[in-house]
Amino acid sequence: MTLPWLAAARGLEPADAVFSGADVFNPFACAWERTDFAVKDGRVVGFGDYRGRKEYDLAGTYLVPGLIDAHVHIESSLLAPSEYARLVLAHGTTTVIADPHEIANVCGAPGIEYMLTEGARTPLDILVMLPSCVPATPLDAGGAVLTAADLARFRGRQGVIGLAEVMNVPGVLAGDEDLRAKMDLFEVVDGHAPFLSGKDLNAYISAGIQSDHECTTLAEAREKLLRGMYVMVREGSTEKNLKDLLPLVDACTAPRCCFATDDRHADMLAGEGHIDDCVRKAVASGLEVEQALRMATLSAAGRFGLHDRGALAPGRLADFCVVDDPERFHVLRTFKRGVEVIDAGYRPPVCPAAPLHARVPEPYDIGIAGRGEARVIGIVPGQITTRDLCYPVDGAGIPDLDRDILKSVVTDRYRAGGSGVGLVHGFGLQEGAIAGSVSHDSHNIVAVGVGDADIVRAVAEVVRIGGGLVVVSGSEMTVLPLECAGLMSALPYDEVVQRLRALEEHARRLGSVANPFMYLSFLALTVIPDLRVTERGVFDVRAFSDVSLFSE
Amino acid sequence: MTLPWLAAARGLEPADAVFSGADVFNPFACAWERTDFAVKDGRVVGFGDYRGRKEYDLAGTYLVPGLIDAHVHIESSLLAPSEYARLVLAHGTTTVIADPHEIANVCGAPGIEYMLTEGARTPLDILVMLPSCVPATPLDAGGAVLTAADLARFRGRQGVIGLAEVMNVPGVLAGDEDLRAKMDLFEVVDGHAPFLSGKDLNAYISAGIQSDHECTTLAEAREKLLRGMYVMVREGSTEKNLKDLLPLVDACTAPRCCFATDDRHADMLAGEGHIDDCVRKAVASGLEVEQALRMATLSAAGRFGLHDRGALAPGRLADFCVVDDPERFHVLRTFKRGVEVIDAGYRPPVCPAAPLHARVPEPYDIGIAGRGEARVIGIVPGQITTRDLCYPVDGAGIPDLDRDILKSVVTDRYRAGGSGVGLVHGFGLQEGAIAGSVSHDSHNIVAVGVGDADIVRAVAEVVRIGGGLVVVSGSEMTVLPLECAGLMSALPYDEVVQRLRALEEHARRLGSVANPFMYLSFLALTVIPDLRVTERGVFDVRAFSDVSLFSE
Repeated sequence: MTLPWLAAARGLEPADAVFSGADVFNPFACAWERTDFAVKDGRVVGFGDYRGRKEYDLAGTYLVPGLIDAHVHIESSLLAPSEYARLVLAHGTTTVIADPHEIANVCGAPGIEYMLTEGARTPLDILVMLPSCVPATPLDAGGAVLTAADLARFRGRQGVIGLAEVMNVPGVLAGDEDLRAKMDLFEVVDGHAPFLSGKDLNAYISAGIQSDHECTTLAEAREKLLRGMYVMVREGSTEKNLKDLLPLVDACTAPRCCFATDDRHADMLAGEGHIDDCVRKAVASGLEVEQALRMATLSAAGRFGLHDRGALAPGRLADFCVVDDPERFHVLRTFKRGVEVIDAGYRPPVCPAAPLHARVPEPYDIGIAGRGEARVIGIVPGQITTRDLCYPVDGAGIPDLDRDILKSVVTDRYRAGGSGVGLVHGFGLQEGAIAGSVSHDSHNIVAVGVGDADIVRAVAEVVRIGGGLVVVSGSEMTVLPLECAGLMSALPYDEVVQRLRALEEHARRLGSVANPFMYLSFLALTVIPDLRVTERGVFDVRAFSDVSLFSE
Repeated sequence: MTLPWLAAARGLEPADAVFSGADVFNPFACAWERTDFAVKDGRVVGFGDYRGRKEYDLAGTYLVPGLIDAHVHIESSLLAPSEYARLVLAHGTTTVIADPHEIANVCGAPGIEYMLTEGARTPLDILVMLPSCVPATPLDAGGAVLTAADLARFRGRQGVIGLAEVMNVPGVLAGDEDLRAKMDLFEVVDGHAPFLSGKDLNAYISAGIQSDHECTTLAEAREKLLRGMYVMVREGSTEKNLKDLLPLVDACTAPRCCFATDDRHADMLAGEGHIDDCVRKAVASGLEVEQALRMATLSAAGRFGLHDRGALAPGRLADFCVVDDPERFHVLRTFKRGVEVIDAGYRPPVCPAAPLHARVPEPYDIGIAGRGEARVIGIVPGQITTRDLCYPVDGAGIPDLDRDILKSVVTDRYRAGGSGVGLVHGFGLQEGAIAGSVSHDSHNIVAVGVGDADIVRAVAEVVRIGGGLVVVSGSEMTVLPLECAGLMSALPYDEVVQRLRALEEHARRLGSVANPFMYLSFLALTVIPDLRVTERGVFDVRAFSDVSLFSE
């Protein structure tokens, strides 16, 4: 018995399609090869002179194996999975390793089910790493708790490939048993260990954690690579580490490095691109294009043991993109399983229900009484880390526009409870307020603003529309509703991009820093140093505990 | 609860051992790092300043992760596994990927059991790839037949990691169902495809075969690497491919290349070494030592998905060797799981029973009648391939010492049956005969000699001693008994080396080529082109069929 693909590989029967004339990137040799190849049943079956039912003449172009994002939260695009897929497929991405951490924090296991189901409806391969830390820390009270037993039910499911970023570093170091049980469920375990170094890093790696995408300095990335971690070079909307980390990459280390976007808004995806953008930036920073492409293809596939992709070779998926030129790297066409991806247009996505049970604070709920040395969260341009700043503050003197010290409020999304208040430096707003229901990792409602009335109005609008992003100033209000669990929009991606730009433009007119909603979304992220604000108030990540606003 | 190794990694408790002062090879960065590291429970737990119950000052030396042989038949050393382990451990090897193909062909599943049991008794990690082709071809009638169902019983066993060299290339290309079932049992599937190229190679790789160790030319190796195969650069006793293939290796391709010895006699192991010898030869051939070392460590581990070794890094096995200098590369000490391997000396090995049921041929059984254009097996120096030579021959004129055309006889080892006769060029014997019970892959009794009487006497002696290697000339006889299934000696390795040298010396005095027993052992190997001899007579590997001695 000769199987159909075997007959096609041997040239005994015509293949489904033959692609000829292009220069094909071969990541095994980091070289370009002018060669024809044949595809049968979605897989490459052979190189050489083949006949096919369809024949594509691609002379003059360059073919690259489908690009892979090694770590992404699709929710952070603000797009439903189907719209996300439309957008990144056009940029040559054929596989994303997605961690549905955000929707899992809001909806629990049904949120993971949602991403798996929606992911299966697009040509994009959305491979899921299960969120390891829901809630992110034992102190966080989000929408769900996922134990090892909960995750075990997803093991062996089509499209589930491992355990996502283990961000509970103290839990790992203390030998937390449920966390250990989660790690024992999977062979592939991603890490999340910003600034971790020395003995604690040794212990974290010894525990079986294999990668990190949180490096912000070259020294940090080098230590992690030397100790055996795969280093994911991240370039998100506000997490821009590519330029700093790129000197780590050479022909020897490239197999241990790959690209990740982690959190990238729709507007950046539409404007700058996806992994193709990482490749262009890497080349612009001086990396050989062949090494950048290996990172974006074979290295990423290899890190996850995905031997069915990452290269165009017999038996592997016929996933690839056609580019105009290796260095300019503009993606012209994308093929998934040998079939050209033609954008079928927008189809309204199904959205999971995730009602908001928040109590909108009254102005007197968010007042600051007292004075003294205050802990102020300093946002860091281009990073998700924050600084623990210290300013002499009088509560009555907030907002302090001269020193750019504004109030930040986090309102519990899940219970009609209270709101926590902190101070933040770096947003630049001179009037108005911004608020949103995207707020890693618990996704409570977070706001930053100049006057308490505007803050309250912004939070109230987020609650009224069932989740979204809002800018208010005077009578003016700009809104992006996020119908999907308060995290993702049900709109077409181009409309989301337009709304995002309108939000950005409105905020900019109020004096805001660029990308205010990305910084806003990380203000409550209790797993990245230094200082955060939660629905309970100020949180010191290094001490891993709530602290008072005034330090004395 | 903090686990002991976690406490050691964090420096909260002393480690079992600390190694300090050496330059440690780091294959992730292809670089040397002067650093101290700590070991707990056999694994590296951390780098930096640690305390340990034992402290080793290794200043002035170089440490390299334990060397890995990516593909070896231990039986080909002629040593029992315990003696093999003693010898290669002293050369810095801590893991071998062993295919017990020879003993499985003789003894069946109990032969595999034997290797697993004996392997578990030594500090060397003998990881088993299950023999995929027992018998090697459907035409071979050896000592056993192993079906997919037989192999399935070994799946999940400690130390079993995949399916070994799939040498039945025609079976793969024809979609043979039992072979397909075997390949579906394992994620890791090694290949064996000498000279395979173009569409047949595409089909072979499409079928899911991931590596090859049979490349003999650079072009062949390059094609296989480009098509996605791991290339094992082989350097055995008579299979010397290293120098030809080495130009394939650079910083980009090194992760896809590793070293294998396949078949290396005890005398070569003792005299030249093991994987350390491959490293030295690679460096002498111009490869950067760091790339050679990556091949010998991380690349080999990576090929088999052995993420617990291949580098000294937190969580990985503390397997390493101490060398005097990176380029001279003489192994001074070997550590397995953090403990120095001290040679405990010889312990008599257990040997599996494997009686010989051969009928010793009479001289009239092996006569050659007729004349004409004869198919003569041409041995190729330093290779296991043979050439299909054509000489005008008169049966009565054999042996033809002038043209170096001798008779080769293969006697069925398993049944009191007949003997096959062929002609061979290249052995150089001017008198006497050599015979042995090591004869890939069926391990019948194979002999080459000048006179029929000597041939018969040599075969008779092999049968009398229950398997072994024999040189006879006149009244003189040199013998190495192989008590273990007629494949391996029960003697200490140094005695085996002495006996092998005596055999070699005796054969050399008779005019023999160097390493006659290695060439002899491959004369009946029906899976490597071009021409072979079996108990049935002459065999054409390319046509995959028996052929007559005279071609017309």
